[in-house]
Parts: sequence; C-alpha cells; structure tokens
Amino acid sequence: MPEYKAPLRDIRFVMDELLNVQSHYRELPSAEMTTPDMVDAIIQEGAKFCEQVLSPLNRVGDEEGCTWSEDGVTTPTGFKEAYQQYVEGGWPSMTAPEDFGGQGLPESLGLVMSEMVGSSNWAWGMYPGLSHGAVNTVILHGSEEQKAMYLPKLVSGEWTGTMCLTEPHCGSDLGILRSKAEPNADGSYSITGTKIFISAGEHDMAENIVHICLARLPDAPQGTKGISLFIVPKFLVNEDGSLGERNSVTCGSIEHKMGIHGNSTCVMNFDGAKGYLIGPENKGLACMFTFMNFARLGTAIQGLSASELSFQGALTYAKDRLAMRSLSGVKNPNGPADPIIVHPDVRRMLLTQKAFTEGSRALIYYTAVQGDFVHHGATEEVRNEADELMGFLTPIAKAFLTEIGYESANLGMQVYGGHGFISEWGMEQIVRDTRIALMYEGTTGIQALDLLGRKILMTQGESLKRFTKLVHVFCKEQAENADMNEFVEPLAKLNKEWGDLTMKIGMAAMKNRDEVGAASVDYLMYSGYAVLAYFWARMALVAQQKLAEGTTETGFYTAKLQTARFYFKRILPRTLSHAQSALNGAGCMMDMEVENFAF
Amino acid sequence: MPEYKAPLRDIRFVMDELLNVQSHYRELPSAEMTTPDMVDAIIQEGAKFCEQVLSPLNRVGDEEGCTWSEDGVTTPTGFKEAYQQYVEGGWPSMTAPEDFGGQGLPESLGLVMSEMVGSSNWAWGMYPGLSHGAVNTVILHGSEEQKAMYLPKLVSGEWTGTMCLTEPHCGSDLGILRSKAEPNADGSYSITGTKIFISAGEHDMAENIVHICLARLPDAPQGTKGISLFIVPKFLVNEDGSLGERNSVTCGSIEHKMGIHGNSTCVMNFDGAKGYLIGPENKGLACMFTFMNFARLGTAIQGLSASELSFQGALTYAKDRLAMRSLSGVKNPNGPADPIIVHPDVRRMLLTQKAFTEGSRALIYYTAVQGDFVHHGATEEVRNEADELMGFLTPIAKAFLTEIGYESANLGMQVYGGHGFISEWGMEQIVRDTRIALMYEGTTGIQALDLLGRKILMTQGESLKRFTKLVHVFCKEQAENADMNEFVEPLAKLNKEWGDLTMKIGMAAMKNRDEVGAASVDYLMYSGYAVLAYFWARMALVAQQKLAEGTTETGFYTAKLQTARFYFKRILPRTLSHAQSALNGAGCMMDMEVENFAF
Repeated sequence: MPEYKAPLRDIRFVMDELLNVQSHYRELPSAEMTTPDMVDAIIQEGAKFCEQVLSPLNRVGDEEGCTWSEDGVTTPTGFKEAYQQYVEGGWPSMTAPEDFGGQGLPESLGLVMSEMVGSSNWAWGMYPGLSHGAVNTVILHGSEEQKAMYLPKLVSGEWTGTMCLTEPHCGSDLGILRSKAEPNADGSYSITGTKIFISAGEHDMAENIVHICLARLPDAPQGTKGISLFIVPKFLVNEDGSLGERNSVTCGSIEHKMGIHGNSTCVMNFDGAKGYLIGPENKGLACMFTFMNFARLGTAIQGLSASELSFQGALTYAKDRLAMRSLSGVKNPNGPADPIIVHPDVRRMLLTQKAFTEGSRALIYYTAVQGDFVHHGATEEVRNEADELMGFLTPIAKAFLTEIGYESANLGMQVYGGHGFISEWGMEQIVRDTRIALMYEGTTGIQALDLLGRKILMTQGESLKRFTKLVHVFCKEQAENADMNEFVEPLAKLNKEWGDLTMKIGMAAMKNRDEVGAASVDYLMYSGYAVLAYFWARMALVAQQKLAEGTTETGFYTAKLQTARFYFKRILPRTLSHAQSALNGAGCMMDMEVENFAF
Repeated sequence: MPEYKAPLRDIRFVMDELLNVQSHYRELPSAEMTTPDMVDAIIQEGAKFCEQVLSPLNRVGDEEGCTWSEDGVTTPTGFKEAYQQYVEGGWPSMTAPEDFGGQGLPESLGLVMSEMVGSSNWAWGMYPGLSHGAVNTVILHGSEEQKAMYLPKLVSGEWTGTMCLTEPHCGSDLGILRSKAEPNADGSYSITGTKIFISAGEHDMAENIVHICLARLPDAPQGTKGISLFIVPKFLVNEDGSLGERNSVTCGSIEHKMGIHGNSTCVMNFDGAKGYLIGPENKGLACMFTFMNFARLGTAIQGLSASELSFQGALTYAKDRLAMRSLSGVKNPNGPADPIIVHPDVRRMLLTQKAFTEGSRALIYYTAVQGDFVHHGATEEVRNEADELMGFLTPIAKAFLTEIGYESANLGMQVYGGHGFISEWGMEQIVRDTRIALMYEGTTGIQALDLLGRKILMTQGESLKRFTKLVHVFCKEQAENADMNEFVEPLAKLNKEWGDLTMKIGMAAMKNRDEVGAASVDYLMYSGYAVLAYFWARMALVAQQKLAEGTTETGFYTAKLQTARFYFKRILPRTLSHAQSALNGAGCMMDMEVENFAF
C-alpha cells in the first residue's frame, strides 16, 4: 500500500494562495478559532493522525474486512482503537455547533480533514463520515428535546449515526420505498422494513448507533411526498441520557463487495423498531435535501483522495522502477535501464493524475467555501448566491471528480504494469475502493440529470450563468496579460461554447424530454472539464505571480504552471468529444425496441 | 453472476454474413473439415460446454481462488473436472497440426471457441489458453525429437504449457532479464532464476507442465540479443514418453491479486532445473515474436469477452429493475415504476456495451482470418500481406479492445447502481477479472509504441496505408449508395484525417523522438475507434442489404443498423479529443523536472 503523506504544501496552496481562506475565515462566526496559527495546528495534527494511525490500517481493513455474527459486526484489527483516538482528539466535533459540544469550525476546514482521512483510509473514514448526515438531520429538523438527547454524544463521537434510505427494490427512486411507520400510543412509531447498503449500520466502534430512517406513515401519499424521517437508535435512550433497552433494529447480514472491505455495509432489519418522527410528516425527503450538497461533496472527496493516494504510489514507483532507455538519450547510464518516469507515456499517466488531483482539490475546497457562506453568509443575498453556486457545482464535483478519480486510480495501477494487479502493492485496492464512489450518493447518471435537468434547465440556465460569469470576469481581467494568454484564450472560448451547448440541448429538450437524459452525462463531463480549466487557469496565474515576484519555491510553482499547461493541452481536448456526442441527440439511443437489444 | 448465453446469432453474423468465412475456409488445407455443417456442429457443441460447464464455475473460481502448498497448487472446485471434460471433448487439439494429433482446424475457428470459453470463465480458460504459446514454440522452433516428445501430449491437453518470461525486476524490458542457463555435459542446461506472473505455472489439472523459459547462456551478449529459449518440463520425460523424475522447477508462491482468482499466477523458482535449448542460441526473443500476434489476439479476446458477459448481465437487469418514470411518458403503467431500460442514460450505457462487443467481435474475427492467411495463404505475397495487416491490427486489437472492454465492464456494473458493487451479482468480478488485460501481454502503452513506432513509422506508414486503402475502397464502392451516406461520409473523412494525423506526428517525431511516446496512446485509441468505424459501416451495409432483400429477422438487422448509428453518433466523436491531444505534443509532458512532480 502506498504510504500516505499528507500533501500539505498543496493543501496550503489551495487554501491560502488560491482561495485566500484566511480572510474568508475572518468573516465567519468562528473567526476567533480560525486564526492562521490555529488552522495550521489543526491541519498539522490531522495530517499526523492520518499518516501515522489511519494509513497503516488501510491494507489491514481491506484484507480482514468486517465480520458479522448475530451479536453484531466486528471491524478490522485496529479500527476501533483508531476511532477511540479520533474521538479523544476531538475530531468528530470539529464543525458541529458549539451549543452541542462542537467546536464550531467551518465546514470547509472540516473537509480538509476529510480529504486527509479519506486518502489515508477511505473505508475507516466512512464510520465517522456517516455520522454527519445524522447530526445534520437532528440539528436542522430535530425538536429541542431530540437535540438535547442525541446531539452531544453524536457530536463527541461517542455514538455514530447512519442514514437508512435504500431498500432492496429501490435506491435512486426513493418514491417507491415501502418501510412503514405505525404510530404508537406514546407518540413514538413502530418502524418495519428492510434497508440495505447501510454503511456503518452496525459495528463495534461506538456504544450506540443512531439511525435516521426513511419510512411511510399509514396514511401517507404515494411517491416522494409520502416519506417521513425517523430517529431509530440501536439502544433506546433513557431520559437521563443513559442507554436503555436494545431496540429491534438489527443487522441481518453484511455485503460482500468489490472494495471498502473495512467498512460494514449492512442489511438492516427494522422489526417494529421504536422510532421518533423528526421533522414534519411526509416531508422527509425535503428535509434530507437540506444538507444533500454537503453529503455529496463528502463523496466527491473520494475521487480526490483516490487520485492523491494513487498518484503518490505511482510516482514513487515510476522513479524507482527501471525499464528501457529514454528515446531521447540514456538518463541513467550507471543502471541497466532508465527509471520509467523518463518515458513520455508514463509521464502522461502521472501528469493526468497530478492534474486531476490538484484540480479536484481546488474545486472541492472552493465549493466547500461556498458551503460556509450558505450557512454563515452575512446577508440573505450572499447566502442565496452561495447556495445556488454550490447547488450548481455539487453534482459536478460528486460525479465528475469521482469519475476522474477512478480514472486516476486506474492510471496509477497502470504505471505499475502487471504489478499493479497484485494486492501487495496496494494500487488495485484503490481502484476497488473507489469504484463505489461513482454509484452511491446518486450515480453519475443521477447527478448528471440533477445538473442539467434540475439545476440548469429548470432555472433557464441561471445557475450556469452565475458560474460562467465568474469565468468571464476572470478572462477579462487577464485579457491584457500576455503570459496568461495560453490559458485565457481557450478558457474564454470554452466558456462561450458551454453556454451555446447548453442552449442547444435546452432547445432540443423542449421538443423531446428524453434529450436531457441522452445528453446529460456527456454534458456533465464537459462541464467538469470546463470547471477544472477555470481553476487550473487561476492556479496558473497564482504560480506566474509568485514566480514573477521571486520565490524560493521555484520548483513548486514551475510544476504548477507546467501541470496547468498539461491540463489545457492534453486533457481539455476531451470537451470536443463530449460536446459533439451530447449534441448528437437521443434518437440513436431511443429508437431501438427493447426486445431487439440482444438475440 | 450473469449466466452466460453464447451469442450464436451474432457470431454467425460476423462469420457468415460479414466475413464470409465459409468461402475462406474452402481455400484452407482444412477445407474438408470446415464444411458449414462441421463448423456449425463445433460452435454449437462449444457453446453448450461453455454455458453448461464453464459458466457455473466462474463465480466459484473467484470465491475460492487457488490454494498453494509445498506440494503444488489446488485449483477451485470443479476446475479440474471441467478440464477433463474439455480434454475428452478434444477441444485442446482443435487448431494443432494433424501430424501431432491435432485436428488442423483454422486458428480463426479456434478463436471463436476461445471467445466463448473466455466469456463464460476467463480464469479457467487461461489454463488451456497458456498451452498455445508452448505448443507454437515447439512446432515452430523445436527439433524433430522435441516435437515428438512434447507435442502429442500438449496437443491432446494431457499436459499443459506455460511461457516463463517475466522476472521480478523486468517485464516489458526483457533485455535485462537475469535467469541463467549453464550447459551440462549431456547437452541439456541447468536453468537458474526466478520467474514471476507465470499464469498456470502450477496446478492440479494435468499430469505434466511444460515450461518455455527465457534465460541467458553464459557467454550471451547483453540485452535482448542474448536471450535463449528452453523447454523445462515439470517432470522430465523418459525416452519412451513416460514421466521421469521431478525437475527442480517449483512454484514458490501464488499471487494475491485483484481478479482472475481462479487462475494460479505463480512465482516459479528454477533451481538448476534441467532444460533443453529450443531454437537457435540467443534468438529466443525473435523466436517468440513469431507467434506473438496470435498470443496478443488471444488477450484481445478478454476485452470482447468481458464486454459480452457484462452486457448480458446489464441488459437483463435493465429490463427487470424498476425505477422512475420515463421522461417521455409512463411505459409500465401497471408497475410502481418503469424498467430502467426506458431511461436514455441507461440506454447510452447498454448501447455502448453493445457497440463495443459486436464491433470487437468483427475486428477480432477479421484479424484471425488474416492469421489463417499468414500460415496458409496460397502465395508468399498473400502470406506477407496478411502478416502485415495482422501486425498492424494486433496492437490495436490487444490494447484498444481491452481498454473498451474494461470500460464496458464498468458500464455494465454502473447499470446496476449500488448493486453492481456487490459480489453476489457478479458484475464487479468482470471488472476485476478484466483489469489485467490492459497490462499483461504488453501494456496499452507498450502496444501503442509498437503500433505507432514499429508498425507505422518504421514502415513509413505502409502498414497504415494497407488498411486505410481497404477503407478507401469500401467508401468508394458505397459512394453512390445514399442509404450508406450517414456512415460513409464520416468514415471517409476520418480515414483521410487518420493519414494526416500520422504524417504530422511522424514529422514531429523526426525532430524529437519523445513525440512518438507522447502521442502513442492517444493515437492508438484514435486508430481503434477508426478501425471499429470501418467494421461498423460494413456491418451496417450487410444489415441494410438484408433488410432490403426482405428478411424474417427484421429485429436483428434493424438493431444492427441502429447500433452502427449509435456508434457513429455517440462513440466516434471521441476521435476528436484523441487527435487533438496527440497533436498537442510532448513538451508539456517532458518539461517537468523529476523532483518537481510532488512536494
């Protein structure tokens, strides 16, 4: 397994030099806590924990996996102890409100920690990661009593939480879910149904697990408008906060799956389990959507994390492994062959990984900063703007970054040749672990429909325009900067083309609604490459400025500029295909009769 | 696991209607054996064996894997018995020469069986598959004595064979291999060294294993020109053909790997093992290259097989699984939702799989027919032409078809949403099993260098011209056929662009040799899409002709035409990106200093 080293220099580049989060943090309620020194200390400590505690457990988790018995699920060796350390270090409470024992730090800072946790050990990170959904549900929709009962221990990490949505027959289409909630005389409900794919649904790391479960009330309308949310704790909680009797929600089995073996993916059986309504009746889905963007951004990180870890592994190998001679002259005359990093195609793979990793980081951190504004913006206008921008960027971040993260993980494996296929090196685990990211929290297809259908076409393109305006302003500002021409010219052209493409698809969709679905994934990928081009141009500008100012870190900034150049020259051409394919319409997909697909 | 059903209708379409192999077979020495009825019977019987015997063992092989002990390797339950049936059915001997007990059938027919075996159970298929290399080595380079001693039992399948090339420190760069061969007084050699990644290197399915091992003689020149080939049997063979003493070649361990768990990937230790020189001293690599094309085509099949099996699984699921309503109106009013095959993006995935599968089949069968000509063409000119065409198409088939096969396997998994990640469904196994195809038998990068560097630029483009001329002739023939315009027009344009692109890269490479490596993979992928476009256009023509003639199979031919249309409209635009990226040169890849890749 590649030994994870937190990429602190690049994290600081994005935070401080690209996004200037220090000044952003000064505008937040947490300003006192988020002084540069504090932020530094948090990131340093977090890095140490991820490198020293989580990274060594990554392969262990994959090899051992989780073990189910009737009494519960046992996590891999060391997972429980690492979680204990994590709780003692106060990490679970970073971004939670101070009222409930949290530290009130910005979500964007929390995501930096999530990146490091995720890169060092994604499967482990899902245990605390899943709690966020439960915490947010209770914060946003819980009664005062519910908050007081569940939040302190969820926030401290003594308890963990889950989100119980999927059922065997439905995942993307929650409108057809069947779990039932029957009212009891005491105001609670009896929840009955089977939930599947419940990550961290059962484990041995915390003394209680608080499930947030979607179910239907007896008189609920059909479809998505008849779903309510319930709190269903594993152990009922007494009024004094102590644990009471075991609730009848149990883990029936755990899934055998391609990757993230260290995380328990549970079938949860609710057999008349006692639950408590949270939020208004039948508004469960709407309640969940209030924090969907952050949950999806959390999954987007898996693309970044995979790309980062795989890049680290591939780079080490490419410097060490000797094979063939450079076509442009021997580079390692004292060895039997040159290190493979001299070969252009190996560099193509490494630079693709590097461009994806650093570009993903910029996009995720930027989107997370919008998330801070959504909650803490000074005016409603600021909050609404940030919300729209975040809503636009989130499906791109979730789907596009996991798609390219998976590509990057595959490239890192490819750098190893046949060795990449061997478990010992750890590169194939990254591929297996990452594959799920393209499916859970809404597949790439679902995200693409959200982006093109809901976010763009339903707003008549307003949310796209908000972003392309940022790009336009940037290009205009740099129009006279000859050094930036190589980036600004293609970016400005792309920005215009993006609008035209959207318009054409929108027009086609007015005649035939299937045109949206037919174009959506190509459109999303196109948009992803466009968004990353904007961030790469901005990063190139920062690098050029630093180099012009005179810096001791010439290598770092030169590489940044070279990576931007690689991105524009070798990656960005992908937009050509996606645009053409998206414009070629639905006809050739919808004409085939179902029975003619195979003979 | 998807239950494999041999796609006999499409196999016959490619063989009989696209390539007209029946008339081709009449020109071969095996004409008597390859009557239409015989070919039919062989394919039918082969299909039955694959569907009924091999397919049910596919998941078993993945779950159980192989077990190593000091006494050898135990294969998964049922593998040995299936192999016994395979031997009894005479399958190993299909394409071997009659002189050694073979049936003398065309290699192209053998590859049809290989496709079905590979789709139903790739890991199993590798045991007999690996024998081909050993058989071909002995046929082409063995002495009469060696042929008599080894071929009958290798051909019958009583023994299996391996190719022992890779060592821990070298795979692609065999020039630096270290295994040694010391001459013994009796004319044999003592082979010493460690070989890794030896597929089927040790197992319990056959009574003897014949290793073909690459090693250096004491006085051998350095590099690739100092490598010789040796036959190293697991059990020495007595003069009467009976098995003698155990040779000192042993399996030290087997690899834990991402997929193909059912196949044993062995570390083979040669501890002064007795070996016999085969072919001339120091010409081992050249000898191996004489049948490299067929070996690589055998690996190309893994892309086709993966795509076929994954498509079958995805299609079944897409018809069954209900989620959401069609955007263009309810299609399944009596159910709670529509089957997901109504959704355009699901169709995009399925049709991509279908276009890749059927296109791959056309390319592989066509290339295999060239292979028949290489060995049995009537004149030297015919043999040379076929050899050049096969040499040009093989790296494309190997690299491009495994890349798109892997994409297809991933798409099939994606159709399942989260369920695709769960082992039970078998879709993720296809992804894991297929991933190695992009690396073994020469990685995609190595194939791309072979195509662009060796096959094209070193022949001043002659081998490319031989193929583009075929395309040109086809386009000219169809120029007046208005119905074919939608295919012929873009194909003719692409065909010209392909030549221009090659010329430009060639010019750049004359100034800087790194331009070849920098462009190679994009160039290879471009070429792959171009080659498949040619076959899709030809398939569309056949379908149009059949529909015009009047056929009872309207659905089949209509789907063929629609798939061709989908390919041209939604897949072929990918050439735009690859061309642009390939043209954007090496500079942005080679400029970065090695120490600046990460900080």
